[in-house]
Amino acid sequence: MITIALAKGALLKDSISIFKKAGLDFSEALLIDNRSLTIYSKCGNAKALLVRNGDVPVYVSYGQADLGIVGYDVLQESESKVAKLLDLGFGGCHMSLAVKNNSGYSKPTDLPANCNVASKFVKTARSYFENLNMPVEIVHLTGSVELGPITGMAEAIVDLVATGKTLKENGLIKIDDIYYSTARLIANPLSLRLDNTPLRDVILAIELCNENKN
Amino acid sequence: MITIALAKGALLKDSISIFKKAGLDFSEALLIDNRSLTIYSKCGNAKALLVRNGDVPVYVSYGQADLGIVGYDVLQESESKVAKLLDLGFGGCHMSLAVKNNSGYSKPTDLPANCNVASKFVKTARSYFENLNMPVEIVHLTGSVELGPITGMAEAIVDLVATGKTLKENGLIKIDDIYYSTARLIANPLSLRLDNTPLRDVILAIELCNENKN
Repeated sequence: MITIALAKGALLKDSISIFKKAGLDFSEALLIDNRSLTIYSKCGNAKALLVRNGDVPVYVSYGQADLGIVGYDVLQESESKVAKLLDLGFGGCHMSLAVKNNSGYSKPTDLPANCNVASKFVKTARSYFENLNMPVEIVHLTGSVELGPITGMAEAIVDLVATGKTLKENGLIKIDDIYYSTARLIANPLSLRLDNTPLRDVILAIELCNENKN
Repeated sequence: MITIALAKGALLKDSISIFKKAGLDFSEALLIDNRSLTIYSKCGNAKALLVRNGDVPVYVSYGQADLGIVGYDVLQESESKVAKLLDLGFGGCHMSLAVKNNSGYSKPTDLPANCNVASKFVKTARSYFENLNMPVEIVHLTGSVELGPITGMAEAIVDLVATGKTLKENGLIKIDDIYYSTARLIANPLSLRLDNTPLRDVILAIELCNENKN
C-alpha cells in the first residue's frame, strides 16, 4: 500500500484534488467533522497521513510515507533527505523581507548592521543575509512574526506573504522577495529505488495532470 | 509602562486571572472576538503581548516584555536568558514517555537500543535518554506526535500529558514521567535590576496571591 503524507492547512484541498485526478480519493479528509489523522483512499490502495506542514518531510524521509506534498518553504528549512519530484504550482506565496512602513528602509542594505530580524524561517533568513554579506541577528519566533517590528524587538521580518493583508494590517511593507514558494511533490528515495509499479503509476499520473494544467 | 508576554492557548485564562488579582486587568484578551495581539490593562499602566507559548521567553529575554508567564516545558526547551521568579502552580501536566500499549515495553530501559523516539521537546527527550545512558534517535515532530508510534516511525514518544485522553485514543500508554510542568512567572533580568517600583509591586502582588493560594 502506498502511504502519502499530506500537510494539514492551506495546501490540503489542492493536494487532495491532485491525488483525486491521479486516481486516489482522500476527500474524506476534507469533511468538517473529520478528526482522523489516517485516511484510506476510496479504492483501498493507499492511505494518507494528515500531518503538520513541517512534519511532511520527516515522515517521507523516514519512509513512513512514500510520497508527500509540502511547500518549498518547508523544504528549505528541513534537514530531511527526500527526493524532490515536481513543482505542483499551487499554494504560491512569496518569502519576503518586510519592515515597518515608516522605517525609511526601502532595500535590505538600508538595514543597520547587527540589527534583529525576526522569522520562523531561520535557515532561509540566515542564508539570505549571509549572501548579502550583512551581519544581522536572527530572532527565532514561532508565530505572529509581525509583532517583532511592532514591539521594537526586530527591525525587519522574513516571512511568507500571500495576499499582503497581514503586513498591511500591521503597518509593515515588503522591501524584497527572497523566493516564490509553491507546493512540491516529494518522495522517499528508497521507495523510489525499490520502485513498485503502483508508486510509479501515481507519480506519472500526477506528472500528467501537472503538465496538462500548465 | 510594564509590558507582559502572555501565552495564547491553555495558560491564558489563568494567567489573566492572576494578573487581575495583582491589579492589572487584561480580560479583554479573553473576548471571543478579540484579534488584537496587544492588550492594554484597564488602568492603562501596563500592556500584554499575546504570543505563542514558545515565543514568551524570547520577548522577555530581548526585553520587549518585562514579565511573562509560560510553561516549565517551554523554559526547558528555550535557550533564552530569563529570570525564573515563581512557580504559579496552574496549567499542570506531565512530560511523559509513552509507547504503544501492545508494545510489551513497561519501562524506558525496555526500549531497544538506537530506536526512534518522536517528540516536540527535543532537548528534554535527548537529555532524558542521555541520563539513562541509552542511545536513541530523537525524531523532531512539530505536531500530532502520537502518529510516530502508530505509523511505526518511532517506538516511543516524549510528550506533554494532561488528562491522558489523547494517549488512550491512540492506543498509547505512559511508562515514565520525566517532570511535572506548571506555569512559571519569568522576568527580563535587566528590567529586574533596573527595578522601577511598579514592576516590583506587580511581582510582589503576584507572589502574595500565589502564597495565599497554596
